[in-house]
Amino acid sequence: MERIGLGLIGSGFMGMAHAFGFAIAERVFDLPYKLDFAVMADATDALAKTAQERFGFRESTGDWRALVADPSVHMVAITTPNALHKEIALAAIAAGKHVYCEKPLGLTSEETEEMAHAAAAAGVVTQVGFNYICNPMVVLARHMIRSGELGDIVNYRGVHAEGYMLDPATGWNFRFEPLGGGVLADLGSHALATAEFLLGPIDEVFGDCRTVYPTRLSRDGTPVPVKVDDITCAQLRFARGCGGSMEASWLAAGEPMGHTFHVYGTKGAISFTQERLNELRHYSCADPEGRHGFRTILAGTEHPPYGDFCVASGHQLGFNDIKAIEVKGFLDAIAGRQAEPMGFGWGHRIQVLTDTIRASSRAKAWTNVPPTAFRPK
Amino acid sequence: MERIGLGLIGSGFMGMAHAFGFAIAERVFDLPYKLDFAVMADATDALAKTAQERFGFRESTGDWRALVADPSVHMVAITTPNALHKEIALAAIAAGKHVYCEKPLGLTSEETEEMAHAAAAAGVVTQVGFNYICNPMVVLARHMIRSGELGDIVNYRGVHAEGYMLDPATGWNFRFEPLGGGVLADLGSHALATAEFLLGPIDEVFGDCRTVYPTRLSRDGTPVPVKVDDITCAQLRFARGCGGSMEASWLAAGEPMGHTFHVYGTKGAISFTQERLNELRHYSCADPEGRHGFRTILAGTEHPPYGDFCVASGHQLGFNDIKAIEVKGFLDAIAGRQAEPMGFGWGHRIQVLTDTIRASSRAKAWTNVPPTAFRPK
Amino acid sequence: MERIGLGLIGSGFMGMAHAFGFAIAERVFDLPYKLDFAVMADATDALAKTAQERFGFRESTGDWRALVADPSVHMVAITTPNALHKEIALAAIAAGKHVYCEKPLGLTSEETEEMAHAAAAAGVVTQVGFNYICNPMVVLARHMIRSGELGDIVNYRGVHAEGYMLDPATGWNFRFEPLGGGVLADLGSHALATAEFLLGPIDEVFGDCRTVYPTRLSRDGTPVPVKVDDITCAQLRFARGCGGSMEASWLAAGEPMGHTFHVYGTKGAISFTQERLNELRHYSCADPEGRHGFRTILAGTEHPPYGDFCVASGHQLGFNDIKAIEVKGFLDAIAGRQAEPMGFGWGHRIQVLTDTIRASSRAKAWTNVPPTAFRPK
Amino acid sequence: MERIGLGLIGSGFMGMAHAFGFAIAERVFDLPYKLDFAVMADATDALAKTAQERFGFRESTGDWRALVADPSVHMVAITTPNALHKEIALAAIAAGKHVYCEKPLGLTSEETEEMAHAAAAAGVVTQVGFNYICNPMVVLARHMIRSGELGDIVNYRGVHAEGYMLDPATGWNFRFEPLGGGVLADLGSHALATAEFLLGPIDEVFGDCRTVYPTRLSRDGTPVPVKVDDITCAQLRFARGCGGSMEASWLAAGEPMGHTFHVYGTKGAISFTQERLNELRHYSCADPEGRHGFRTILAGTEHPPYGDFCVASGHQLGFNDIKAIEVKGFLDAIAGRQAEPMGFGWGHRIQVLTDTIRASSRAKAWTNVPPTAFRPK
Repeated sequence: MERIGLGLIGSGFMGMAHAFGFAIAERVFDLPYKLDFAVMADATDALAKTAQERFGFRESTGDWRALVADPSVHMVAITTPNALHKEIALAAIAAGKHVYCEKPLGLTSEETEEMAHAAAAAGVVTQVGFNYICNPMVVLARHMIRSGELGDIVNYRGVHAEGYMLDPATGWNFRFEPLGGGVLADLGSHALATAEFLLGPIDEVFGDCRTVYPTRLSRDGTPVPVKVDDITCAQLRFARGCGGSMEASWLAAGEPMGHTFHVYGTKGAISFTQERLNELRHYSCADPEGRHGFRTILAGTEHPPYGDFCVASGHQLGFNDIKAIEVKGFLDAIAGRQAEPMGFGWGHRIQVLTDTIRASSRAKAWTNVPPTAFRPK
Repeated sequence: MERIGLGLIGSGFMGMAHAFGFAIAERVFDLPYKLDFAVMADATDALAKTAQERFGFRESTGDWRALVADPSVHMVAITTPNALHKEIALAAIAAGKHVYCEKPLGLTSEETEEMAHAAAAAGVVTQVGFNYICNPMVVLARHMIRSGELGDIVNYRGVHAEGYMLDPATGWNFRFEPLGGGVLADLGSHALATAEFLLGPIDEVFGDCRTVYPTRLSRDGTPVPVKVDDITCAQLRFARGCGGSMEASWLAAGEPMGHTFHVYGTKGAISFTQERLNELRHYSCADPEGRHGFRTILAGTEHPPYGDFCVASGHQLGFNDIKAIEVKGFLDAIAGRQAEPMGFGWGHRIQVLTDTIRASSRAKAWTNVPPTAFRPK
Repeated sequence: MERIGLGLIGSGFMGMAHAFGFAIAERVFDLPYKLDFAVMADATDALAKTAQERFGFRESTGDWRALVADPSVHMVAITTPNALHKEIALAAIAAGKHVYCEKPLGLTSEETEEMAHAAAAAGVVTQVGFNYICNPMVVLARHMIRSGELGDIVNYRGVHAEGYMLDPATGWNFRFEPLGGGVLADLGSHALATAEFLLGPIDEVFGDCRTVYPTRLSRDGTPVPVKVDDITCAQLRFARGCGGSMEASWLAAGEPMGHTFHVYGTKGAISFTQERLNELRHYSCADPEGRHGFRTILAGTEHPPYGDFCVASGHQLGFNDIKAIEVKGFLDAIAGRQAEPMGFGWGHRIQVLTDTIRASSRAKAWTNVPPTAFRPK
Repeated sequence: MERIGLGLIGSGFMGMAHAFGFAIAERVFDLPYKLDFAVMADATDALAKTAQERFGFRESTGDWRALVADPSVHMVAITTPNALHKEIALAAIAAGKHVYCEKPLGLTSEETEEMAHAAAAAGVVTQVGFNYICNPMVVLARHMIRSGELGDIVNYRGVHAEGYMLDPATGWNFRFEPLGGGVLADLGSHALATAEFLLGPIDEVFGDCRTVYPTRLSRDGTPVPVKVDDITCAQLRFARGCGGSMEASWLAAGEPMGHTFHVYGTKGAISFTQERLNELRHYSCADPEGRHGFRTILAGTEHPPYGDFCVASGHQLGFNDIKAIEVKGFLDAIAGRQAEPMGFGWGHRIQVLTDTIRASSRAKAWTNVPPTAFRPK
């Protein structure tokens, strides 16, 4: 089996998730390649060295360009602050590497369009980390929608709510940058990816972006005006004809991981929350009289690839396991076993969607989503 | 103790709920009056007679005007189809009766304004049946919001979803009338009443009214075009400064009574569903480290007037019990013990809100809610 | 329609529930009789008078014997402390009254046998207040067991846990009396009634009665040794061949109304808690592959007599509504419309069961339940 | 850092969990050793070879003795059928290896005593795979009990219910062996380990072992009488003074992973189910009036070692992650960083407990648990 070299840039929250995702994928799945944990890069040599040891890489560097240039690196995983995504990704693409970048893919749709074009032109495989859609229960949800099991879909409600900016003392950081920041970029991108994964393309939106805390403190304690959204809601029109709504909030007390959706069809309904990622609630109108009710389907061996992790149902997958499934999709796409599950084209599209929602909110008008080269099925 | 005579018009779903609500209130509460179940009216003498016997009224009539004219009737409860509300209510007010009318109060805001004015001018006490807000757990929610226990409120999400129009074979009925019908009138009015009860006045809305089934069948099987909404979402701005959203749907599979809300504050959050009406979920940021989590508060003797129903906590109130609490508020207002809890002024205001949402949806624009004489605190 | 006179003795927790139960039943159901709320009795004239007014009785008395002797009283409801049950019930039976007594029926099985015999000899209708089994969802559970829908039943787990004795400062009261007291009498009787209602007769038990707080304080502050159980568990053998267990505790923090059961069959399983009395959780092995899961069935119009309370599903019944269903069963039995749903014969049997569990605990041995005249199907 | 060689015997359900657990532990934790995935053994060379490749071992063998003899193997993980545990473990101990064996440790308490003695005499570190107790939420539960946060514990209810033997067509396998089989060995051992982990030693038991299906089919279709338990309940007395109960069932429809417990104290209560392994439900009597209720604590960074897996709370650990925590404890014990978390001494003790419960069931008598060299704190 061929060996494929990984270069990972960034060792924070998502860097860690990538490292664990690759390590788990290597053990759990029948991958098309043997993994070589080649190079770990971070902001400094010291940080990179620490991460290298922790995550089991062969080498480390404080210079991401060295990583990109390393011939033993065949794929580059980018988990840096968002503002660096474009430069690194373009360099990696230019060097012929496959690229796996955390969301949001870039700061603007101009950036992401350039990135998607470059990748397509270079013929490399790309991936954006919309990891929630890799969950077997979300895949099951999609299947239930697409197969007609739920009938015609009449309504959708998707929310991604967390509470990590609730404390007013949380200081200014890159997520508050006017360009590319805000909850819509950070969490709304997930909500939109899940919505399109389940129901297909969104054609029109009406956005309502709200800033709740008008300032955040800089490191030296100066209040800096916040120009991004703390909470965003949007009305949605899907190309399939149904309507719905999405909401993103980072001011949601009590919801550390409130990525949720409800889908209502003419034959049933489903609901999901990432806080119970091994469960899908399902209501079937076909249940016998007097026996109707939402049932809690627990992830099990009937929901691939659960069985690769555990041969007994109901034992629970974790967040890092879902990341491993994401990794598998990327590697399978590189090997030509399947299409890109969520390539830069889709990452760009999500950026276009968030931009459109923001523009719609400013214009206070329903706004068509501009056409994108990639359009999810 | 003085005796007060009740005239009830209509013996369908809500007529039954009124009859039971008055009967339970009489036993459970220390009411200001002794109740006289005086006259029962329905569309025909026969229907009225049957209902009279079932509900324990002294007399019955197939002519609501006779009921209104009866001097032993001091208060008139109206549970007829919506199109009759205005005529009956105005007649009752003109006869000096107190009036208790099911929601929606009327078909248009012109109607409801006239009704509210007439009631105010006549000095009678009025009530509209927004019964969910009488639930002790909803009152607790309001208290937690108003007392500051949840901190500053940053977001609101209210939904009233049911599924009784999901079957495409459900034929045309008064709820599909272009004037005054649709899910916004039928269920959205509840969602809006709860929103204003909890958070105070809504000042601006953006509505998205959707018709999913373009036709319904008339009794003779002819398809009739549907001009009302099956599903409506709206973005909301509250006078208190926070934003939020509401949704009403009668196409929601699996939710027979999905009246729900989430309130997010800077010190905590709460959530509620009428399908578990004895529970309020509460998250407090003040909980000790490592011990945070949504707790399920069960209705009990600390949540008045629960203790009037049962001296032991956790034994559960039912839908009719909540209606009895509503009845108590009406009678207390008649006796001058408290202000009208939800008078025609508020009923009119809710009509204005639904009209504004509808108009906003047509105009595809954020729309200010016109001023109303009554404005909830 | 014939008029039937009610005499109610006791106006505490359960006296209130009886008064409300009769009042609701009168409005909600098509009863075989017209109710006459004849006489209210309590420990003193003053208490009785207050209760009379609150509960709408015609007369009151501080002497229960006067109530029993009153010819306008046709049925006597007893909600006094347990030690008085026997004397009052025997007097009422001797006077030819139908008798409706709260559980536990008596202090000892000698007492309850005498009561059951007397009732049978007199030909009056009797009832013991095992109200949880009147819940439509519990009736549904029984139906699912008896119809074979769950297959062969292989295991049962029933618990009745509450927390009202958890505070060590809770002083001595009649529930601590060595004769007839303890949690087994107070809550275990409910757990056993539900177990036999669902699965039929229990033939053999192994009891484990535990006293956790060795003393309770008398009114003057003297510690009195506690000779009754605070927590009792028992292993059970049902005549149908399956085994199971029951537990009763009044020291259960967090469970104001923890009457729960799990039933496991070869074709499915169900679980229930009285804290969500409108729900029955059901797992069906026959669900399609990958769609298995416990579903939450919400009480609705398909679960009689829910529809008598409300014509729309999912609106929730309350504790007093369940009591009204119990009342209906008693009245229907008096009218000969149905057999006694839970007569003194069963009340005696439950007493025998609790006595046997207590004896088994003392003997530390599996013990056969002695034969009883009444044996549930 | 020193390198430590792992030999894994068996590649079935638990062999896979071990392989994944070591792989995850290696990436997630700061382990005291560098792991060498040295030798994989299985029943045949071919099976071993396949597993070696899948799980990333250096070598493979169809002969476990070769693995034990290999000097590069420092620790032996045993996941074979139970009947082989003793022979392999004793050989490994004799060879000076540390041994990590799946539960149940052996077939009889004579076996396990010999194994525990041998390990102690040889001074090697041992571990038995009671993995549920490694869950941060179970560790939190223990802390809440031990720190006094829940007050005095008054009652315990532990259940391990699954449904994998529910189908009567499930044929005879090693779990039905009269010696060492049955649900008490297979699942009851987990329930007992959790009970003692939380509350300390059990001193006395009353067992009720039940065989529901009297025969199972052998491979050639012959019915073989079943001499082991399908469902076992036991009453328990803990050395700390409180009582409780346990139940084990492999006939529980709908519960793929029903490892649950309820702990009731004088200051609060907790409950847990492994089907939602990231949650601990907690009721605190100290909550403010009107705000009581079970809260759902979600695993997060305040619950070590959650933070090693993910820096954001609420993202969920999975079954294999819990196994990785178990692995870490074993390696830390080998390195002398901590005591054996669950060594052969405890494995033996659990065997003694299951034997005592079985003996008690046969004797139909409360039975003292014989003293064991190891006694959990």
